[in-house]
Amino acid sequence: MKALEEKIRNEGEVYPGNVLKVGSFLNHRIDVPFMCECGKEFHRLFDGCGVNKILTVEASGIAVAVLTAQYFGCPAVFAKKSKTSNIADDVYSAPVRSFTHNCVNQVMIEKKYLEPGDKVLIIDDFLAHGEALTGLVKIVEDAGAEVAGAGIVIEKAFQEGGKALRECGYRIESLARVASMDADSGEITFID
Amino acid sequence: MKALEEKIRNEGEVYPGNVLKVGSFLNHRIDVPFMCECGKEFHRLFDGCGVNKILTVEASGIAVAVLTAQYFGCPAVFAKKSKTSNIADDVYSAPVRSFTHNCVNQVMIEKKYLEPGDKVLIIDDFLAHGEALTGLVKIVEDAGAEVAGAGIVIEKAFQEGGKALRECGYRIESLARVASMDADSGEITFID
Repeated sequence: MKALEEKIRNEGEVYPGNVLKVGSFLNHRIDVPFMCECGKEFHRLFDGCGVNKILTVEASGIAVAVLTAQYFGCPAVFAKKSKTSNIADDVYSAPVRSFTHNCVNQVMIEKKYLEPGDKVLIIDDFLAHGEALTGLVKIVEDAGAEVAGAGIVIEKAFQEGGKALRECGYRIESLARVASMDADSGEITFID
Repeated sequence: MKALEEKIRNEGEVYPGNVLKVGSFLNHRIDVPFMCECGKEFHRLFDGCGVNKILTVEASGIAVAVLTAQYFGCPAVFAKKSKTSNIADDVYSAPVRSFTHNCVNQVMIEKKYLEPGDKVLIIDDFLAHGEALTGLVKIVEDAGAEVAGAGIVIEKAFQEGGKALRECGYRIESLARVASMDADSGEITFID
């Protein structure tokens, strides 16, 4: 998605350690009209695949997940990162390492919100090492549901997550695939 | 909003300690088409007030905030509950007690995402004791921006948050106002 690449080039900030900050439109301030365009593009890509549920993980995935779900006319479920008094005991869960928080969360979904027969499109803001996506895939399959694929806003294609999951046969569509980024020059290049 | 009251009656679960679980459409699984209707209603209520930014707090507020923002054609900003490597040091912050997590979070927003002159509509899923809303109001005013009002999906009107904030002069519009709920019978009543 060329408009997204341009937005990342214009607004993204590159920091040492392969950190790409896009807080101005995706992770903190959400450019909602623009994110609606991303949602429409995910719908175009996965239309006709029988998707009846969108799945993501809190917190940054929620915005793009619900804005996408509206074009499918389906619900969105988000995995929680911590147990609250509001969550039931009967959950599917998977460990997910967060590189921005530098910790491992046991992400969880109440069992009643994922069912055998569901055809699930996983949506997330970033794909890098693939930890979150791998955890969500495990949860979908533990539930006896089917992964229709994954829609990612920004893939750090120089890290191994996308490659490993595609090799396992999952369909992963990333709207922008970063080939390289340089913290000194701020330069970001993309895979076409 | 009668359709919301009906949904709360049909799908809400009441637990001791004034806990109302609405995980089936608002807090865990999000009924996106229905939440779009809530967003349209907030837009109808605050249309013409000059709103140019929606503000909420992660995580459960994000879905309804972005689905509302699209009708205003404006961005949404969400306050973060914890410091990550992705957040700058220059933040507005306020302490907010979470009753579901039983802890106090210092919620924060990077200063560049709130500006003097902004007219901010605060959107949240619940209003009970008013802790989150009070924190967000403080942040908006610390930034020199203006609170246009607050749009709440479900207000526990038997708790004091809404009353206190209205007495301070803030316009608060709640789509459903729970007058009472009974954990034994499961009965929920609303204020018209």
